[in-house]
Amino acid sequence: MRMYDVILKKREGGELTPEEIRFVVEGYTKGEIPDYQMSAFLMAVFFRGMTDEETGVLTQAMAHSGDMVDLSQIQGVKVDKHSTGGVGDKTTLIVAPIAAACGCRVAKMSGRGLGHTGGTVDKMESIPGMRTSLSEKEFVEIVNRTGISVTGQSGNLAPADKKIYALRDVTATVESIPLIASSIMSKKLAAGSNCILLDVKAGNGAFMKTTEDAVKLAKKMVAIGERNGRKTAALITNMDYPLGNKIGNALEVQEAVDTLRGVGPADLTEVCLALAENMLYLAQKGTPDKCRAMALTAIRSGSALERLASMVEAQGGDPEYIFHPEKFGEAPVKAEVAAREEGYLHRMDTEGIGITAMMLGAGREKKEDSIDPLAGIVLCKKNGDYVKKGETIAVLYTSDESRLKDAEEKYLNSVQIQAEKPAQEPLIYARVTKDGVEEAGA
Amino acid sequence: MRMYDVILKKREGGELTPEEIRFVVEGYTKGEIPDYQMSAFLMAVFFRGMTDEETGVLTQAMAHSGDMVDLSQIQGVKVDKHSTGGVGDKTTLIVAPIAAACGCRVAKMSGRGLGHTGGTVDKMESIPGMRTSLSEKEFVEIVNRTGISVTGQSGNLAPADKKIYALRDVTATVESIPLIASSIMSKKLAAGSNCILLDVKAGNGAFMKTTEDAVKLAKKMVAIGERNGRKTAALITNMDYPLGNKIGNALEVQEAVDTLRGVGPADLTEVCLALAENMLYLAQKGTPDKCRAMALTAIRSGSALERLASMVEAQGGDPEYIFHPEKFGEAPVKAEVAAREEGYLHRMDTEGIGITAMMLGAGREKKEDSIDPLAGIVLCKKNGDYVKKGETIAVLYTSDESRLKDAEEKYLNSVQIQAEKPAQEPLIYARVTKDGVEEAGA
Repeated sequence: MRMYDVILKKREGGELTPEEIRFVVEGYTKGEIPDYQMSAFLMAVFFRGMTDEETGVLTQAMAHSGDMVDLSQIQGVKVDKHSTGGVGDKTTLIVAPIAAACGCRVAKMSGRGLGHTGGTVDKMESIPGMRTSLSEKEFVEIVNRTGISVTGQSGNLAPADKKIYALRDVTATVESIPLIASSIMSKKLAAGSNCILLDVKAGNGAFMKTTEDAVKLAKKMVAIGERNGRKTAALITNMDYPLGNKIGNALEVQEAVDTLRGVGPADLTEVCLALAENMLYLAQKGTPDKCRAMALTAIRSGSALERLASMVEAQGGDPEYIFHPEKFGEAPVKAEVAAREEGYLHRMDTEGIGITAMMLGAGREKKEDSIDPLAGIVLCKKNGDYVKKGETIAVLYTSDESRLKDAEEKYLNSVQIQAEKPAQEPLIYARVTKDGVEEAGA
Repeated sequence: MRMYDVILKKREGGELTPEEIRFVVEGYTKGEIPDYQMSAFLMAVFFRGMTDEETGVLTQAMAHSGDMVDLSQIQGVKVDKHSTGGVGDKTTLIVAPIAAACGCRVAKMSGRGLGHTGGTVDKMESIPGMRTSLSEKEFVEIVNRTGISVTGQSGNLAPADKKIYALRDVTATVESIPLIASSIMSKKLAAGSNCILLDVKAGNGAFMKTTEDAVKLAKKMVAIGERNGRKTAALITNMDYPLGNKIGNALEVQEAVDTLRGVGPADLTEVCLALAENMLYLAQKGTPDKCRAMALTAIRSGSALERLASMVEAQGGDPEYIFHPEKFGEAPVKAEVAAREEGYLHRMDTEGIGITAMMLGAGREKKEDSIDPLAGIVLCKKNGDYVKKGETIAVLYTSDESRLKDAEEKYLNSVQIQAEKPAQEPLIYARVTKDGVEEAGA
């Protein structure tokens, strides 16, 4: 088999055979296929797409290119959850403990943040002592003991995806639905859970700008999961503004704790309940209504918060930060951002707000950058809120005063104020399962 | 400027600015842009195409990436001719001497053959002593003396094209009209002539399989030439069967000599007269009718043959091979191919016939392969000819008997015989000038 012929076939719109797809993935991972052929192939895939069959085989080949995590020693139904990434998205810290409190097992591998989006691993590391690089044995043991563990990705999880993603990132071939779907799902398959709930963000702060594209991506991922014997569903959720009111690592842990105590922001609470309900439903814990009731009870009873604290303790962190989040303290430098005019906040440029947080030290521009755990933003006003001129719309936190000025400018450029009240957008657009797409409109 | 952004812009169907195109060509030639970004870019161009403006700038940038041949020391109108490549295409050896005999100057850089197509340089080298690697000074001096010189391409002619073509060749990005047009025309612009006649082959033995694609390519190339101040025209000629009856290096020189003596095959003679007429017309030697009459006279008077002999002598070759082509002798091994059934020859797989010649030693599969100057094929029957079972349809020549069996099989598989006489196809489909497309149907 020759790579040239595979590129040509895809370029001409042909459907690749499983053998051809495995040849590409294995050959590229081993370094037998050069970057320049792979990037031409990826661009041809960008234009020609891939069938569900092709995408499924690609995903499997990437999943099997490295370690397949063995969760067989964990008792019970293992439920995974994945978000395509957004700003202020601390849902894992909330829904994983809820699912665990309701009898599911959540053995989750998470990533770090890059650019305007945050990562769960970075958020957890704001808790002193917290370890996020567990051995497989330790990971399994903690899940069996506390029902939940969140660790960073092992180095050899889907190495083919890692190498292909790095190439896509520099050759403008990221924005392809089959390539995105196979990249995400290869890691989910390798991570070993029985059920997978996907949170596909749609909006100006997300990778998918439109709900149509988000639905397409969700359908592909659900098809891949189901084809590989995993119960898979997806919610399409709103990322036209940040989720919740806090952005930053310690700040988001605090807000997660608030939500687990039942005093979190309404939008975040609603999205988390919907996610938890769907995780429990995938795990066959009952009807959707029963699942939602269980999730609510896990919050009201405090059992979900207990689960989070147990996991933190099991991973070396100080659980007092969960019971008393005021222990995190505040960043040394803080500045209020005042509205420049009167009116309704609308069109939040969520990516711009994510970048503001990054500029303050809460995120990284390059992989090597370090993170300031206390840096971030507290949003005082969000989409649809009325503000007077000079009223505080947000508070910026940082440890480096020199970062403030540009960040404040960036923040102000990321929100618009208008005279008319904007229409309210739904928080959850749709639910995608193997049976089809259901509009949600919550 | 970042290559990533240029790839993205083209991927999204944008029109690149001249600065962006020059950035790509210069950056890639210098090695600042890596192969993997360039191949993704080329694949995006394959899908999105390029405007005439973009293709023109790309061509100029590639032409100026190395030496621009200075023909200013040559007196008179310099006319170049380029064929997109076919099987049995020895037209340069015929039309260049005709044009020179009619007062044009032909300073031509030619390539070597690869795969199923031959190259003029290889054909000339079948003449003992013939040098095809001339210095620029010598090249200019020979043109001034004899009116014609054909040399191999200088190493530094359009190096950007050389590097880009090598990458296209292994990434399935060859078949893109703007990329083919700019590749050919960058070398033609750098080679310095005032007038350029293009022979764009169409058919199963050509790069362009359909006349529609051939016309598209011709239009792009004519637009590029005219935009750069060169008088440019193209003929679209038939490559659904080999041109003339002889394929192979010495064999083609012999057939070129026959044609210059007025006893060549009808199809080859007609195509050469049309090419010569158009070269003379571009050089403003008179009306098309007058130009054709001049070309005929150059053959009948023997002056064109004299020009070929003078050039051969000036380049170190033995002119006796031109006046007495029987001096070439015959390859030591020869075999007649007999028809397997009775009927009309039709659907000659011209590429297959070219590959047969290559298998006999007349061409190269890889650049490093050496050539057997006496190897090749003499076609005894062509499209539309009636044959009896067992009648000789071709004679194969080689110096290596072990090559015969496979070559004979390949040849037989490359021709079909049917009961009905096939319709006759035109030799010349169309003429493309800056004023538009004229159907020819000769």
